[in-house]
Amino acid sequence: MSNTVKVNTENLRSFTTKVLKNYINEKDAKITADILLSADIRGIESHGVARLQRYINGLNDGVILPTAEPKIVKETPVSIVADGKGGMGQPITYKVMEKCIEKAKTNFMCFASIRNSNHYGIAGYYTKMALENNLIGISVTNSAPLVLPTFSSEAVIGTNPISVGIPAKQHKPFLLDMATSTVPRGKLEVYARKENPIPESWATNEHGIPTNDPALVLNNMINRIGGGLLPLGGGGELTGGHKGFGLSAIVDIFSAVLSSGKVGKDVYGEKGKPAGVCHFVGAINPDAFCGIDEISENMDNYIDMLKASRKADGEDYIYVAGEKEYQNEAKNEVVLNLQDKVFNNLNDIGKEFGLQLASIG
Amino acid sequence: MSNTVKVNTENLRSFTTKVLKNYINEKDAKITADILLSADIRGIESHGVARLQRYINGLNDGVILPTAEPKIVKETPVSIVADGKGGMGQPITYKVMEKCIEKAKTNFMCFASIRNSNHYGIAGYYTKMALENNLIGISVTNSAPLVLPTFSSEAVIGTNPISVGIPAKQHKPFLLDMATSTVPRGKLEVYARKENPIPESWATNEHGIPTNDPALVLNNMINRIGGGLLPLGGGGELTGGHKGFGLSAIVDIFSAVLSSGKVGKDVYGEKGKPAGVCHFVGAINPDAFCGIDEISENMDNYIDMLKASRKADGEDYIYVAGEKEYQNEAKNEVVLNLQDKVFNNLNDIGKEFGLQLASIG
Repeated sequence: MSNTVKVNTENLRSFTTKVLKNYINEKDAKITADILLSADIRGIESHGVARLQRYINGLNDGVILPTAEPKIVKETPVSIVADGKGGMGQPITYKVMEKCIEKAKTNFMCFASIRNSNHYGIAGYYTKMALENNLIGISVTNSAPLVLPTFSSEAVIGTNPISVGIPAKQHKPFLLDMATSTVPRGKLEVYARKENPIPESWATNEHGIPTNDPALVLNNMINRIGGGLLPLGGGGELTGGHKGFGLSAIVDIFSAVLSSGKVGKDVYGEKGKPAGVCHFVGAINPDAFCGIDEISENMDNYIDMLKASRKADGEDYIYVAGEKEYQNEAKNEVVLNLQDKVFNNLNDIGKEFGLQLASIG
Repeated sequence: MSNTVKVNTENLRSFTTKVLKNYINEKDAKITADILLSADIRGIESHGVARLQRYINGLNDGVILPTAEPKIVKETPVSIVADGKGGMGQPITYKVMEKCIEKAKTNFMCFASIRNSNHYGIAGYYTKMALENNLIGISVTNSAPLVLPTFSSEAVIGTNPISVGIPAKQHKPFLLDMATSTVPRGKLEVYARKENPIPESWATNEHGIPTNDPALVLNNMINRIGGGLLPLGGGGELTGGHKGFGLSAIVDIFSAVLSSGKVGKDVYGEKGKPAGVCHFVGAINPDAFCGIDEISENMDNYIDMLKASRKADGEDYIYVAGEKEYQNEAKNEVVLNLQDKVFNNLNDIGKEFGLQLASIG
């Protein structure tokens, strides 16, 4: 078991911003830091400041172009096509989502397909931007090819997450944010460290056959031997794996086919070149349908109905999408627990720029 | 094994239309027959003419109101809210989708949320209407509560299918049409008949615990004892069941929360009353993004990439969504094979109206 170190959330935000300012402008650094922090605060540590090192590596080795000038290449009253020009994923997606929100307020909805971008953090951040404006939010992105199409042994699609958020009234919003693979790669790492077997629906060996051995899968992935993560539903069609594959493809299509960006295994396809990650985000004004008052009240009633359903033996609570993350948010507002490995790595990064991250308590 | 009977596809269409004309007007009967036939032709027999008896029962017992006059209750340049007034699901959805298509042609996109409707057939039919106009199509619907939320033992959500279609150029369109449960109820019936055990991710016993016994699950469903189908991903969270649950909820929300219709277990909630099924359909004009030429070519390349991926041991082909159904379509254009049980039932129905369905060969 690794230990954790407590840090002040605002200190961590300021530290992360200062590090990023060495590469990108202050506004973009602030946006990116906020999105990383938001992941940690919501308990999605895999997408938080633990990724700062990877972003810095990307900025140093040509995967992320620090001086890129993203552009809107096409615009209608309800849609946007943007080109990230190889820059950071967070700032362009944030700014495009802001524009979607403004357009949705006057034109009822707006969706954007964004090409030539990079890893954009948690999909749910952009959905939440819409929710904070009493709008319905949507956010999906393609990603590094780690997942197998049904009947394949070659990872040519990403974990391609889908996030959708709908405002409620008394309840917190419904905020789905899910990879379309059964699990992300990080889960295999946890099981490999503990030497625990993984369920059959998670991943395959190099022959595309489901395996219980997480270390084998990770080794095959790192050395590009073959196999990889399985789509939601697992291998083959019997347990619905072709559905997870279909959903993953839809994410690729809305992100990259609609924007003429990189799809499938072309994402991160050339070492030392911009990754070409593509996103699709959007906002829907409840006034396009029954309006925020009715819809948010309907949502409350729906959530109540789900939660009131009879519990399975041994269970006493039904969670709805986003609920756990909102609970984490309340808990982590002021103080965050970082894995000591992450804390030490951040201070290693900081050293180069004369920055130090303090622990508390 | 049951035997099959060959019928002429156009004869079956005309027979089905004539039966329905005894309840609803000719235009609506033609639309409904076409949607039922389309399911059989595409090989989705569970949603084809085998359902005619159920529709007639519904029309006779107050679940479907034959003289309903559906209405559009709200409209913006890019959205519609419609009220089915308890009538057949197919005609209203068809007409609303036609309107979405027209609006998408001029306003780049249009989505409709439809309340107080009934079973609308295969979700993919409406998606295909968009595809035939070189538009991207979306179609989802809530349905009878047969599926458990994660950690529940009470079926309060439907198998809530999602269909999304994107035009390609040389390839057939990509046409996803999937229930958000691991399998539909019909799959359990097939396994029960053969006395075969079902995989753990399909369904639970009355305590919400996954079971291999399909007969038990079906008996529990029929007698409303508890348990039911599992969301895509299976029981609990370990294999991603909460993701299938989340997707199912999104379908309920877009169909019924946005339209102020019936959600969850309120669908088919009162015997002898309109079922209150709700749908969400829409069309997106490729011109909102990179245009039909670029997008359909991008789709071809994407499909080629998926299909070219290395095959798992023992497999030699990667299917993309909709491909099997398009193959069936080509095969079943002129002659359809009906289960003899279905053929006999249709002739029983026909007798009442002086109609006979001929077999061929």
